[in-house]
Amino acid sequence: MKLAIDAMGGDHAPEQIIAGVNRALKDMPDLELLIFGDQAKIAPLLEESARAEIVHAPDVILGTDEPVRAVRRKKDSSLVMMAQAVADQQAAACVSAGNTGALMAAGLFVVGRIEGVERPALAPTFPTVDGAGFVMLDAGANSDAKPEHLLQYAVMGSVYAEKVRGIEKPRVGLLNIGTEEKKGNDLTKAAYKLLSDAPDLHFIGNVESRELLNGVADVVVTDGFTGNMVLKTIEGSALSIFSMLKTALTASAKSKIGALLLKDELRGLKNKMDYAEYGGAGLFGLRAPVIKAHGSSDANAFYHAIEQAHKMAQANVPAIIQSQIASGKE
Amino acid sequence: MKLAIDAMGGDHAPEQIIAGVNRALKDMPDLELLIFGDQAKIAPLLEESARAEIVHAPDVILGTDEPVRAVRRKKDSSLVMMAQAVADQQAAACVSAGNTGALMAAGLFVVGRIEGVERPALAPTFPTVDGAGFVMLDAGANSDAKPEHLLQYAVMGSVYAEKVRGIEKPRVGLLNIGTEEKKGNDLTKAAYKLLSDAPDLHFIGNVESRELLNGVADVVVTDGFTGNMVLKTIEGSALSIFSMLKTALTASAKSKIGALLLKDELRGLKNKMDYAEYGGAGLFGLRAPVIKAHGSSDANAFYHAIEQAHKMAQANVPAIIQSQIASGKE
Repeated sequence: MKLAIDAMGGDHAPEQIIAGVNRALKDMPDLELLIFGDQAKIAPLLEESARAEIVHAPDVILGTDEPVRAVRRKKDSSLVMMAQAVADQQAAACVSAGNTGALMAAGLFVVGRIEGVERPALAPTFPTVDGAGFVMLDAGANSDAKPEHLLQYAVMGSVYAEKVRGIEKPRVGLLNIGTEEKKGNDLTKAAYKLLSDAPDLHFIGNVESRELLNGVADVVVTDGFTGNMVLKTIEGSALSIFSMLKTALTASAKSKIGALLLKDELRGLKNKMDYAEYGGAGLFGLRAPVIKAHGSSDANAFYHAIEQAHKMAQANVPAIIQSQIASGKE
Repeated sequence: MKLAIDAMGGDHAPEQIIAGVNRALKDMPDLELLIFGDQAKIAPLLEESARAEIVHAPDVILGTDEPVRAVRRKKDSSLVMMAQAVADQQAAACVSAGNTGALMAAGLFVVGRIEGVERPALAPTFPTVDGAGFVMLDAGANSDAKPEHLLQYAVMGSVYAEKVRGIEKPRVGLLNIGTEEKKGNDLTKAAYKLLSDAPDLHFIGNVESRELLNGVADVVVTDGFTGNMVLKTIEGSALSIFSMLKTALTASAKSKIGALLLKDELRGLKNKMDYAEYGGAGLFGLRAPVIKAHGSSDANAFYHAIEQAHKMAQANVPAIIQSQIASGKE
């Protein structure tokens, strides 16, 4: 199983990226890698070289680059060269922690859409209180969506939840502002009907954002604007609360002692909410798995993103999506 | 200043409602109240009676009632009779902790819209890390919105922030999935232009949901679907995190001692995030102030909702909104 890696994307590249790569090569004996980036910087960091080939990429796409223009102009960047390797079938899947918009553009223009899929969707996995997690899509690949797009998101999310996350008959929920069928805006009302009528989906109806972290569904579908909004609201709320908690824990000598006694439990709590363990966000609907690792990925987060790409390629997720989308159209 | 109160709405009615009423009558010497509800239940709870008149309402709208139908059929309910008292100018404003949809319907059909306002909006005030708070609208009165509605929300929110919350030149932010002008869906892109061109608004551009609790704007405008989604996501995230924190704090004898040492700080943290201190959600755009207190309101929360209605009526917020909306049209 050969995967392509962008070694230059993300806040801690290439050090943490290659640290994740080193661990992945140790843990997954069938893994082979094409690593794109600055040869001189990567070579000293890479431990194993028999199953990992560094391909020098002279250019890099920055976080501040305008995505579509960067993909068109920076053909020699690690991100575009990585996507090209997948398009040329030199690699079965790819992983980058770089510019999200650029990775989506490279996915669309270089890797290409699965036939029949109208809109690829960004699908991160979220932590839940019980540790099971859920996948939500679209988290921001397309700002506007039609009801039929939401149906395709449901099909793609279900395939992923079943084949990669090992959930039998994954529960699909439509993200909405109320659980009753008639609730919502024009989009969700129309999507509700389409999802109810889809024979192969285990549609459980509307789910509210209030219940997301309690694990109310395995697959949550929504338009990219709402999905991105909810993603950032959860992140922002958690960060704000943890920052206030930190202030409270260090407010006095007494509270510091209290914090010390609670150290293990608080670390456990933080780990539970740690996105890193759940891998990156998949770009579903492309001809091959493309994984967006978080921009602030450390070695552990990037390791899990590689693991995710590996599983998706092994399970042949794009081919299954293609056949399910095709059969839905008959 | 005479206000109308629905004593029967909310999870803790009428006990906590009347407890809040008792405190409000003590603290606000010019306050007079018309209290609608079950006379036999309210009378024994009410401490002051010279400035408070109980008006017996034989019926009650339940949380489970279908809102529009309930308002049409239950004319003798405490909620509808309260709204009618405002429509008849017997009271300057009203407060209910009951069925949100029914209160919105009563606001629209009984109290009535301000001339020129196309869509009334639900406007709760949110806590921020620094304690200043911000008002967001629409939080769910209308699921779909046009760009012009968002402009009117901005005008109404600014009047409220300035006249009631005492913020000079309130910063208006457009809730979006990125800060750049071109980000977002069709609605936010069009609304951005309208808001930029409005001469009397202090529009600061797009704001991201991630930054909301950090106090990035004084007034945040969005469509009712997104606003309701974000509201419920913040509530849900906070509840989930606090519930996990509680589990951590009681996990062992050691952690329980730690929790004891941190008691004061953790209570302070909880108070900071307490919506009750910020009053209820205003229904902006109606001929008189209509305040929705939280369904789980205790005496303190209901007290603050009365205070808010009092301030809004005193500052004559509906009249100022009407004149600003009218001048914007010239």
